[in-house]
Amino acid sequence: MKIDYDAIVQASTRISAHINTTPVLTSSALDELTGAALFFKAEHLQKVGAFKARGAINAVLNLELSERVNGVATHSSGNHGAALARAAKIVGIPAYIVVPNNANEIKKAAILSYGGVVIECESTLEAREEMLAQVIDKHNAMPIPPYDHEDIIVGQGTAALELLRQVPSLTRFVIPVGGGGLLAGSSIAAMQTESIQVYGAEPAAADDAYRSFQSGIRVKSHTPDTIADGLRTTLGELNFEIIKDNVTDILLVTEEEITDAMKLLWTRLKQVVEPSAAVTLAAVIRYPELFNNERVGIVLTGGNIDPDNLPF
Amino acid sequence: MKIDYDAIVQASTRISAHINTTPVLTSSALDELTGAALFFKAEHLQKVGAFKARGAINAVLNLELSERVNGVATHSSGNHGAALARAAKIVGIPAYIVVPNNANEIKKAAILSYGGVVIECESTLEAREEMLAQVIDKHNAMPIPPYDHEDIIVGQGTAALELLRQVPSLTRFVIPVGGGGLLAGSSIAAMQTESIQVYGAEPAAADDAYRSFQSGIRVKSHTPDTIADGLRTTLGELNFEIIKDNVTDILLVTEEEITDAMKLLWTRLKQVVEPSAAVTLAAVIRYPELFNNERVGIVLTGGNIDPDNLPF
Repeated sequence: MKIDYDAIVQASTRISAHINTTPVLTSSALDELTGAALFFKAEHLQKVGAFKARGAINAVLNLELSERVNGVATHSSGNHGAALARAAKIVGIPAYIVVPNNANEIKKAAILSYGGVVIECESTLEAREEMLAQVIDKHNAMPIPPYDHEDIIVGQGTAALELLRQVPSLTRFVIPVGGGGLLAGSSIAAMQTESIQVYGAEPAAADDAYRSFQSGIRVKSHTPDTIADGLRTTLGELNFEIIKDNVTDILLVTEEEITDAMKLLWTRLKQVVEPSAAVTLAAVIRYPELFNNERVGIVLTGGNIDPDNLPF
Repeated sequence: MKIDYDAIVQASTRISAHINTTPVLTSSALDELTGAALFFKAEHLQKVGAFKARGAINAVLNLELSERVNGVATHSSGNHGAALARAAKIVGIPAYIVVPNNANEIKKAAILSYGGVVIECESTLEAREEMLAQVIDKHNAMPIPPYDHEDIIVGQGTAALELLRQVPSLTRFVIPVGGGGLLAGSSIAAMQTESIQVYGAEPAAADDAYRSFQSGIRVKSHTPDTIADGLRTTLGELNFEIIKDNVTDILLVTEEEITDAMKLLWTRLKQVVEPSAAVTLAAVIRYPELFNNERVGIVLTGGNIDPDNLPF
């Protein structure tokens, strides 16, 4: 497969029966605050509460029957695990999700609710990868990684494609970057829209994508310390290649800026979104010179929070 | 004016340019949990973040020019103050809002943001009423009370009217009751729909409407102690007359049930709603025999919370 605009259009058709066409939300209060016209793509209202539903079902539908007959597998402490479990359930195959034993119970419950098989292990990356290798070997399951994968990138790009179809004349995208699946996919979806510049938004406390982008050399491991738990992953290889070519810049924001932006989204948009989703608005507020008087498309990536354990 | 179905239809037309036609939200997870089909009218996405915007603008638009030329006045620690300030701004008159000095800063800021004049006083009901009388006397302003008023009841009823137009074949309404403006108005809006039964939902820790309904004699003062701050007011006189005739029953729920329901609305619908809005879902969960297999219309009354001071 080639990762290009047409691939995203095709994916959008392929997955359309299995995902929500999420609404676009606006707020005159936030427009006034930022001096921009903001269009929030509400992927926290997506199936499984996150855009990850898109990539997972796209990847599973794109497998040959012979490739998926024994099930799919991944390791995940976040939304990709639930998204893959749901995608597997749709096509009637098992999903084996390796989960660190310190993952929160809500994420585990979500995987189980879609019929996924949860396999616990130690929380180190080594332990997770080793356990995943064992699971794949034992069940002959197909691995579907969370972001460094063509079908995942293309699937995640369908959110931006929808947003471009819903809102005319956008001039900016601001997209959170963790592993880089959504940012890479969105940057490809934006390719046919000449007027648009694509920015990544990243916590300064998890700045591997920023450093990779600045130096041109991918940072392969880092020690993130951010409340934006969806953005603690390390930038993927394929993701970096795409981002390097298509993205205008990566913008850093502090933890306090993320929390403040999250409160604004809760109190003004009245939407429950994850800290990872608020990184975008934080960037728009921090770098007004880039967004003043622009029409800005923002993906609210997810809304899976633990109400008993909020960052404020 | 007569308070009847036609009055609500007329109010709906009168205020339509000044309010949002709010969306109706659904959740397959909550339907599964309750065994009912739930239709949530998203009045937390209304102007000023609450259905109160409806009654306030209806009351102000319904005043003769001579009645409103010197402005309007009320006492309020909640959303009615902001709603009245906004309504006054729309028609270009002053709004004097008497606010207890222990009211939260967010509510005060909202009143000020619409150009309302905030007048602080002691927090007792007597002090508030005395200060309001002084303000009315001084400015010759027209008092617009928060619920015990024909135009307010009729205005609040437009939310239920919209919901009936948006969702066919509803068989139940579940509406929070504090002062009774929304419940009375909704019960009148439901009059032309024979198949529907209207229930009020009330915190057991603020059960004046329940006791009034049971005994047939209005409880005129009580000492509420509930996290549902919008429902601490005492049932109005006119409101009680309407509710007595039109409502099937008033359902009580505990504080814990309210908090649990609020968490469900946050984590499943991904919507930021006030505790007062969650009283409805709490009632549906507590009394399954009334709602099993029914098509239930619920008004999510508001979403103005303080993110630094949540009840969980």
